[in-house]
Amino acid sequence: MIDLCLVGAGFIGPVHAANLAAHPGARLKWVIDLNLPAAKALADKHGARAGGDLAEALADPAVRAVIVCTPPRTHTPIIEAAARAGKAIFCEKPIDLDVARVDACAEVLMATKVPFFVGFNRRFDPTHRALHDAIRAGEIGRAEMLILSSRDPEISPPDYVAAMPYGIFYDTMIHDFDMLRWLLGDEPVEIYARTACMLDAKENPHRDPDTAMVVLRMAKGALVHVNSSFRAVYGYDQRIEAFGEKGMLISGNQQPTTVERYGKDGIRRDPLLHFFIDRYAESYKRELDEFVQAIEARTAPTIGFDDGRRALMIAEAGVHSAKSGSPVALPA
Amino acid sequence: MIDLCLVGAGFIGPVHAANLAAHPGARLKWVIDLNLPAAKALADKHGARAGGDLAEALADPAVRAVIVCTPPRTHTPIIEAAARAGKAIFCEKPIDLDVARVDACAEVLMATKVPFFVGFNRRFDPTHRALHDAIRAGEIGRAEMLILSSRDPEISPPDYVAAMPYGIFYDTMIHDFDMLRWLLGDEPVEIYARTACMLDAKENPHRDPDTAMVVLRMAKGALVHVNSSFRAVYGYDQRIEAFGEKGMLISGNQQPTTVERYGKDGIRRDPLLHFFIDRYAESYKRELDEFVQAIEARTAPTIGFDDGRRALMIAEAGVHSAKSGSPVALPA
Amino acid sequence: MIDLCLVGAGFIGPVHAANLAAHPGARLKWVIDLNLPAAKALADKHGARAGGDLAEALADPAVRAVIVCTPPRTHTPIIEAAARAGKAIFCEKPIDLDVARVDACAEVLMATKVPFFVGFNRRFDPTHRALHDAIRAGEIGRAEMLILSSRDPEISPPDYVAAMPYGIFYDTMIHDFDMLRWLLGDEPVEIYARTACMLDAKENPHRDPDTAMVVLRMAKGALVHVNSSFRAVYGYDQRIEAFGEKGMLISGNQQPTTVERYGKDGIRRDPLLHFFIDRYAESYKRELDEFVQAIEARTAPTIGFDDGRRALMIAEAGVHSAKSGSPVALPA
Amino acid sequence: MIDLCLVGAGFIGPVHAANLAAHPGARLKWVIDLNLPAAKALADKHGARAGGDLAEALADPAVRAVIVCTPPRTHTPIIEAAARAGKAIFCEKPIDLDVARVDACAEVLMATKVPFFVGFNRRFDPTHRALHDAIRAGEIGRAEMLILSSRDPEISPPDYVAAMPYGIFYDTMIHDFDMLRWLLGDEPVEIYARTACMLDAKENPHRDPDTAMVVLRMAKGALVHVNSSFRAVYGYDQRIEAFGEKGMLISGNQQPTTVERYGKDGIRRDPLLHFFIDRYAESYKRELDEFVQAIEARTAPTIGFDDGRRALMIAEAGVHSAKSGSPVALPA
Repeated sequence: MIDLCLVGAGFIGPVHAANLAAHPGARLKWVIDLNLPAAKALADKHGARAGGDLAEALADPAVRAVIVCTPPRTHTPIIEAAARAGKAIFCEKPIDLDVARVDACAEVLMATKVPFFVGFNRRFDPTHRALHDAIRAGEIGRAEMLILSSRDPEISPPDYVAAMPYGIFYDTMIHDFDMLRWLLGDEPVEIYARTACMLDAKENPHRDPDTAMVVLRMAKGALVHVNSSFRAVYGYDQRIEAFGEKGMLISGNQQPTTVERYGKDGIRRDPLLHFFIDRYAESYKRELDEFVQAIEARTAPTIGFDDGRRALMIAEAGVHSAKSGSPVALPA
Repeated sequence: MIDLCLVGAGFIGPVHAANLAAHPGARLKWVIDLNLPAAKALADKHGARAGGDLAEALADPAVRAVIVCTPPRTHTPIIEAAARAGKAIFCEKPIDLDVARVDACAEVLMATKVPFFVGFNRRFDPTHRALHDAIRAGEIGRAEMLILSSRDPEISPPDYVAAMPYGIFYDTMIHDFDMLRWLLGDEPVEIYARTACMLDAKENPHRDPDTAMVVLRMAKGALVHVNSSFRAVYGYDQRIEAFGEKGMLISGNQQPTTVERYGKDGIRRDPLLHFFIDRYAESYKRELDEFVQAIEARTAPTIGFDDGRRALMIAEAGVHSAKSGSPVALPA
Repeated sequence: MIDLCLVGAGFIGPVHAANLAAHPGARLKWVIDLNLPAAKALADKHGARAGGDLAEALADPAVRAVIVCTPPRTHTPIIEAAARAGKAIFCEKPIDLDVARVDACAEVLMATKVPFFVGFNRRFDPTHRALHDAIRAGEIGRAEMLILSSRDPEISPPDYVAAMPYGIFYDTMIHDFDMLRWLLGDEPVEIYARTACMLDAKENPHRDPDTAMVVLRMAKGALVHVNSSFRAVYGYDQRIEAFGEKGMLISGNQQPTTVERYGKDGIRRDPLLHFFIDRYAESYKRELDEFVQAIEARTAPTIGFDDGRRALMIAEAGVHSAKSGSPVALPA
Repeated sequence: MIDLCLVGAGFIGPVHAANLAAHPGARLKWVIDLNLPAAKALADKHGARAGGDLAEALADPAVRAVIVCTPPRTHTPIIEAAARAGKAIFCEKPIDLDVARVDACAEVLMATKVPFFVGFNRRFDPTHRALHDAIRAGEIGRAEMLILSSRDPEISPPDYVAAMPYGIFYDTMIHDFDMLRWLLGDEPVEIYARTACMLDAKENPHRDPDTAMVVLRMAKGALVHVNSSFRAVYGYDQRIEAFGEKGMLISGNQQPTTVERYGKDGIRRDPLLHFFIDRYAESYKRELDEFVQAIEARTAPTIGFDDGRRALMIAEAGVHSAKSGSPVALPA
């Protein structure tokens, strides 16, 4: 049984807390949040202790791991403190918004050698994983093109957008930048990005890009396209298409029911699942399970700090390309 | 090049006439109809001669074949006259509504030995045929259950209904009674049928059955279900499902386009093709092509008089079952 | 918080036990099974007490409800004992295989007035329920035809089959007999059934029917077809199609992933979910949740003893029809 | 009745000849080809005259229109000769491979004012057109992203490839460059392209690009992605996805039948139609019909010379981008 401390009782924290509660090998012992009432509410629900100060939880020798789900710019100090306290770390993506800070953090981690897991949950989705496994098993031979459609049903609130400019790269497509590395087992060497503001001034007052198209070249030659939007009115649109010398694999969308309604105007199915927490409910469970099992078995998680760092680098290069209008080379 | 005479310029006549016009090996020479203006209009369109008297066309030695598409109760005298004139015969289904008359007609045909083809067009639909060929190739092993859904978008006009009571058996499901024999390569030994009047008195003033469910047992043991309706508001619904020891085959519906429309209310596709002449356009071409080729090659058509007779017998037994409420045995 | 006692640690018992463990308002307090080691193993997993004697658990005043998942022929004495002890009852379907015994049991229940819930889990499947709600909302107007396909991937073990002859009615299609009542809000007045033995003597040594087709007429006029098989090699096949004056609703099958694999031989998707416990995982959770909430709120469950009795009556009439070859009338 | 002369009896010529033969308002009078036996064979099949010299046919006053389906580099002299002879012109795409030559040709056309139609057949596909009409009708509101997948099942023969380097732009994606203009009613202002050689040296001995990804920005702001390959082993892959503020429209692929095959390994459908002549059979008919009707009605075709010129300009800019690695601006 592993005791854990969750840092950040906000948006995604309760999802991880509920999954910990249902996990047979894990126990939520602490919930830490600067907003103490939020920490208390979440802790009470799951029989954990609440606190406003991380140090208190890190001092608890029973705590073996920390789940970091605070805003991205607060991640690195928490990671460093947890690492110095010898705790295993599960950190939400992105690790940070600044590669230099991430590199500094990497040094602390390397010195402490604590297990580190970055929460790219999409790798754990059963459908995406089946596509990954089929590529690896050679079903399409050499992969030649990869197309990722990654569209949110709505934009984040203005405060959230203001806190993370170019969030469509750092927060949304960063998932796709991780997925393309994982699916192809390859690294990109160049990125070209174009963005647009399609939402009106009321929905997107900061005029931050809400629409994007990206093309990447991979070291082994494959071409990759990513498109993203913050306005998929029909639901959370998450598709992957891998094309290769022997065929094509498509990971399609998901709907709440399979009902088909036939009428005079045609045949209608449900809109897509609207919310990422519904769409990726299973992924959130499975990533946490892998993290817990890796701690228990003292093995390295299959996804680590360098994966988080590389996805951030690609996002950063994509932002440079979008701003300059020219393709940007990526270091090998 | 085969010269043909078409008898019956009404509903389905123009479809066959146009297909003959486009056929490289056939030529429409005569159009005969008691309604001479109708015969003339159709004949003029295709450069054929028009007449009100079949004898005139049968006397033309150039005419090698006759296409019979008059109302069912007029078929047998036309067949007999054409047979006595030594012409090959393509006859629309049903051959007649009375098995005794069909048997009498059979004697004339046997005496003259002219080629005879009954127009069960569905056998020539590429999708249904692919299903048939897959059964024959053993894809599902022994066939255990067969389900045919056979639904029209609307009921025929009252006059048409009055002229053919229980038309849902004699005119609509007769196709399915032929299909089940052809698909399974087997004969039914028993039929049970239940009907209902679901349309209101305005749409269905004669209160003829407009809805039906049928169960048949086949000699080799398979169970068959047929359902039919005259009110499929979403289009002409034509599906076949064959279930067997190794799997299932489904022949699905067809739509005018593949467009999918994603919106807040869900994902919408086109309604089904509405009209049987659109849905089975290809079948009408292919059945006529087989008929013309069989005449040219002096081979027997793959579907003949006995197929028409057996489908009618099943329909008749089905009507008896529907009326009596009990299953009816079919002769081997 | 409701404390419950589970009776029957076999097949479906562990499913209910795990759902109770995850339920925020319920607690598994006892597991009773004549096979004491089985009871112990399941009880230990969830921190409950194990016993071989139901009386001990019924004597525990903390226990407010009993979950009955023993073999069908043992249900009525357990129900009666639990009712006399004043416990609420959740009973797996079928209540029993004999209508007379069910009627006797009904008298005890009526005397004690304990809440009773029969586990027709399919009513709680989100897709089937969406179809139900659409019918109720008038989406297809008057329902005219209902078609239920209900196919298991394999036959039960010979012992299980021997203990319940005609299990395809009593154990499998009984779900459909319940569904048709619930979906149409109507009662059948007549049933006609035909069965076959398609599996070979090794798979089906008792030559119990493994394939069935049924047609029912409903009091309000709709026609219903049910087909069933114990050999759907492509997975657990569960479809419902409701046809009415304004359109059609289809509740389709479910697959583990949405991956599509395009290759030279065509486009391939996953086979269906193979096992009913996977296919109806969500239904099992939701039915138990309704039961627990009904106890907590002291309201009647939406599905009760009479629903179990009526489904059994339809199954029994279906068996009579299959044996006699004639349709059987059902009492109003 | 319009008499026409077909120039070029090769690949696509017979398709147009057969469609003319079936057209009620058109008659194929001449077939011209430098390869006189080829011209003769095609002319004989349709009762037309054959010739090796275009001048002879252009001198025939009965000929009102010319269909140009010779190799692209021979188009402009034929167009100019036909224009000077006052004939209406239907020209296969691309008009030429060199914008300067196209501009010179435009001057001749402007002087003669003969009707000109460029054969971008995809505009006439019923499914693509339904998508176009839905955009125009405002179904998705403002179009924000457009994705075109345009993949051939195999590469052209080496001679054909050698005669048209970067044919993936000039011959294949030129269709998409036309489609994006037509669908969005807008012009691109910038193009970025990346290509790869994925086929091996035996299949692609000239190492001409066989795989491409393109991103374009449109004047009104929409972002467009085109991907193309010469190795879609599962068939001719032709999809369009239009995303906008109110939803998404998808024009999907087409298959020879709707059969679904359920087995232990999953559910299999047919591969896609393999050949563009099958996939776009209806488009070829409809574009010719529009051309013939426009001549008859003396109205301008809906797609003209400037459409051909603009698609070529986009292709040319795309090649510059692919060669330079940088985005290329397009003139307004």
